[in-house]
Amino acid sequence: MDDDRKYGVTIQALRRVPYYLQQLKILQKNNVETVSAPKIAELLYLNEVQVRKDFASVSLSKGKPKAGFSVSELITNMEKLLGYDNTEEAVLVGAGSLAHALLAYEELKTYGIKIVAAFDNNAAYIGMEINGTKVLPAEKVSDLCRRMKVHIGIITVPAAQAQIVCDQLVAGGVLAIWNFAPVHLSVPDHILVQNENLAASLAVLSKHLKKTIDKI
Amino acid sequence: MDDDRKYGVTIQALRRVPYYLQQLKILQKNNVETVSAPKIAELLYLNEVQVRKDFASVSLSKGKPKAGFSVSELITNMEKLLGYDNTEEAVLVGAGSLAHALLAYEELKTYGIKIVAAFDNNAAYIGMEINGTKVLPAEKVSDLCRRMKVHIGIITVPAAQAQIVCDQLVAGGVLAIWNFAPVHLSVPDHILVQNENLAASLAVLSKHLKKTIDKI
Repeated sequence: MDDDRKYGVTIQALRRVPYYLQQLKILQKNNVETVSAPKIAELLYLNEVQVRKDFASVSLSKGKPKAGFSVSELITNMEKLLGYDNTEEAVLVGAGSLAHALLAYEELKTYGIKIVAAFDNNAAYIGMEINGTKVLPAEKVSDLCRRMKVHIGIITVPAAQAQIVCDQLVAGGVLAIWNFAPVHLSVPDHILVQNENLAASLAVLSKHLKKTIDKI
Repeated sequence: MDDDRKYGVTIQALRRVPYYLQQLKILQKNNVETVSAPKIAELLYLNEVQVRKDFASVSLSKGKPKAGFSVSELITNMEKLLGYDNTEEAVLVGAGSLAHALLAYEELKTYGIKIVAAFDNNAAYIGMEINGTKVLPAEKVSDLCRRMKVHIGIITVPAAQAQIVCDQLVAGGVLAIWNFAPVHLSVPDHILVQNENLAASLAVLSKHLKKTIDKI
């Protein structure tokens, strides 16, 4: 039953869960014990109906007519849903500035992800430590993933190298790839690629500006 | 006519344009003069029909039956479409590790965006230079945006402070916001918010892993 509910959550709802969690934790810090869906909708500037639906699919118990949902129960359910209760190890390939940011990004731990090693093919970076994480030679990535049973690979290399790195990660048994390179990666069906396409966002921003400024 | 074509491009097509551009520039570097939509589809692992449609809406001239499209013409059209031909100035608020990454992110220039100042409310950061960009006190952001006619604001503060920063940017006349904080921002209708929700991506990754590993 637990599982049925979990798999009933859509990707779009799933993407909103970190927003909810963040807000629920603020409420918890302020000793708020129960909260209604409309209240959360108001706090997050989201649609009330949407929040109500999301809560119904995420929460294991029903909200009470007046008091709403238990804040701590919602937090537990949402963290469980996202798998934050058990930490997954990840490797990162490409030790440039984006890698530095990710290795300093504290939220990763909150989301149950721990970067155990970074890789680069630039000799100048190899042996370096970034925020306590060692940079190893790129050619060792498949081997280390296999040996340590790492399931997440983070790609922060330039576009031209991303597919090669992706293939090495897949060869090493990685199941999910977080791709920051502005290219479409080709992977077997069972692998999830989550693209973080900063270039695409910039395209949308630039275009909006051009249109808006042309009108002024 | 030029404009009609430009406004006919969907957001989804627009988000693919940086992929095309990146690939087209590699071809140009290798002295390839013409390229067909199917060839680009193959190189980028995209759907052929989709690429054909995108090219038709982006390109000002039709592809030739055998030779395909002129690489340099496609590049020019796409760069013009995205507004990369004129640089827009941007400010960044929140001088943490993500800010460091963005200030070192060379692609920004390619996409016609120049960060002219960074802001933070932490006295320890103020006066610092990150990659040649000065960190100024957060309370001055509206004023500087207004004075310098800056149209893009980048938010890299923690979630709890993002809405305040957003309001200050809007008050300063910013028209487009690139938001890295994991919150939904409330803005007037004419302002575009482009969310870069790393937390949401992590949620999707974690969930996929949990599901896949449970099956093994």
